[in-house]
Amino acid sequence: MILKNIPSIKDIQDAAERLAGIAHNTPIMTNNTIDKLSGCKLLFKCENFQKVGAFKFRGAYNAVASLSKEKLEKGVVTHSSGNHAAALTLSAKLNNTKAYIVMPKTAPELKKKAVKSYGAEITYCEPTLKSREETAQKVIDETGATFVHPFNNYSIIAGQATAAMELINEYGKLDYILTPVGGGGLLSGTSLLANYLSPKTKVIGCEPEGADDAYRSFRDGKIYPSENPDTICDGLLTSLGEKTFEVIRKYVDEIITVDDESNIEAMRLVWERMKVIIESSSAVPLAVVLNNKNKFKDKLVGIILSGGNVDLNKLPF
Amino acid sequence: MILKNIPSIKDIQDAAERLAGIAHNTPIMTNNTIDKLSGCKLLFKCENFQKVGAFKFRGAYNAVASLSKEKLEKGVVTHSSGNHAAALTLSAKLNNTKAYIVMPKTAPELKKKAVKSYGAEITYCEPTLKSREETAQKVIDETGATFVHPFNNYSIIAGQATAAMELINEYGKLDYILTPVGGGGLLSGTSLLANYLSPKTKVIGCEPEGADDAYRSFRDGKIYPSENPDTICDGLLTSLGEKTFEVIRKYVDEIITVDDESNIEAMRLVWERMKVIIESSSAVPLAVVLNNKNKFKDKLVGIILSGGNVDLNKLPF
Repeated sequence: MILKNIPSIKDIQDAAERLAGIAHNTPIMTNNTIDKLSGCKLLFKCENFQKVGAFKFRGAYNAVASLSKEKLEKGVVTHSSGNHAAALTLSAKLNNTKAYIVMPKTAPELKKKAVKSYGAEITYCEPTLKSREETAQKVIDETGATFVHPFNNYSIIAGQATAAMELINEYGKLDYILTPVGGGGLLSGTSLLANYLSPKTKVIGCEPEGADDAYRSFRDGKIYPSENPDTICDGLLTSLGEKTFEVIRKYVDEIITVDDESNIEAMRLVWERMKVIIESSSAVPLAVVLNNKNKFKDKLVGIILSGGNVDLNKLPF
Repeated sequence: MILKNIPSIKDIQDAAERLAGIAHNTPIMTNNTIDKLSGCKLLFKCENFQKVGAFKFRGAYNAVASLSKEKLEKGVVTHSSGNHAAALTLSAKLNNTKAYIVMPKTAPELKKKAVKSYGAEITYCEPTLKSREETAQKVIDETGATFVHPFNNYSIIAGQATAAMELINEYGKLDYILTPVGGGGLLSGTSLLANYLSPKTKVIGCEPEGADDAYRSFRDGKIYPSENPDTICDGLLTSLGEKTFEVIRKYVDEIITVDDESNIEAMRLVWERMKVIIESSSAVPLAVVLNNKNKFKDKLVGIILSGGNVDLNKLPF
């Protein structure tokens, strides 16, 4: 299989240059207690400390900053109620343009408020994919804004790859890098980057059992849509896109699933022992390590803590 | 007033040397959103990421490592159910000696478990000061162990001073440094250090209104005992000691009190915006800044986030 348009190492380096001084080069934390529990050496890349509280800022900013002057003037649009919406809105603001966010009426107030606080123009739609897409199309027709997909977009993938780039630049050749997988933007970017800079590093996607569409898609070589996902990891409900899947098929070593009870335990462990706030979706890679100790024994394992946006009034523990 | 035996800059430097490579040189975090809210530039020294999750490790380790070989062999003892107990236990372990902890029967299970997990030998007592002191004396008589007071001890004060030392070494001459004040170990150490290295930096103690004994003691020039304190900041219930008070009187610029509602809001702000877990006692300095914006306008203000040990099942929000 020849992958033609996927981001090159130069594309990822260009993304890193665009992000320099704007995105945080987030800290990499270690924790002796969790190392002892897991039997390996863990490096936590803290994207929960990233702008808007999630790695999504990297991709969104790279996508917006890559637009031509003409396109940039007309703004950007996406349909999302999550971290990508906040990330795209802030990226638009930093590039002096407008963000139009299409969001289901039923989205939690907290998320509406967050996106509004970053300055988005919100258009509400019905909570169906059809209504989302139609509403977004209407916004595009009216404004000429450019649609920026949350993950099925090569500029997004190149941007997300810069987190793993910082990890490898600081720590060299890791044995493993683990990321959560929802739509696959972070996982595909990470696997590409590892392939370019540290091809012996194995990249593993980590997925909740109750939303195992990426696991099944990877196993069978075709994209299964995510149907009725049942997990507390609300950032990992989406299906893979064809662009992310193409990269994942070729460059990811494995996808491992894990039950939500283990995810909640891992989340709590990070809160209690590391004193850092991660969202449930970010706990999946640590849960995978703790459930597969033999596999990772004595290895140097990078984990990307993808985000820290949590409703403190709705904790799972 | 001549202060004779108080730690010199050399004592603090010696403490820093003892701690080098053992305590974490904790990160200093900044946050644009909180800066905008407060109208000044805030530097958060993250002692919640310190060993045992609190600055207390610095003082405890320095005190244990300063003991003579003979004393060290017989172990150390303290009465505490909080961060100092955990800090002293880990410090004893790292110095290959024993920690005897006297703890009221009624202490929360979580705290008993934490101290036990670090390897302490616990003796339970009645939940009164008299029983605590008598039980500790009994342990001393039986074992010959050295009593290490949580704050009224010059080695402890010198150890706590090293947090502010790292802050000033990294950021130079700050306008203010704010710390919480309970027994006054952190506040006295910080004020001494500032006096030696950056005498124009004003040091302010921050105290919950419901436990304002340090405020009143500072105002009236005599130690008032903390009686029936009423605050959620459970790390700040104790009275000053004569050693900490002597330093605080001379080197601290001001003590400011703040209501618990503001403390809880400030705590939540740090959790939500910075994604780091701090205990309620650590939120007091930020609450003071947010309640006194004019005072701190456009200043460079260091805040020591003193600890991150929180029972996640008993959050105040």
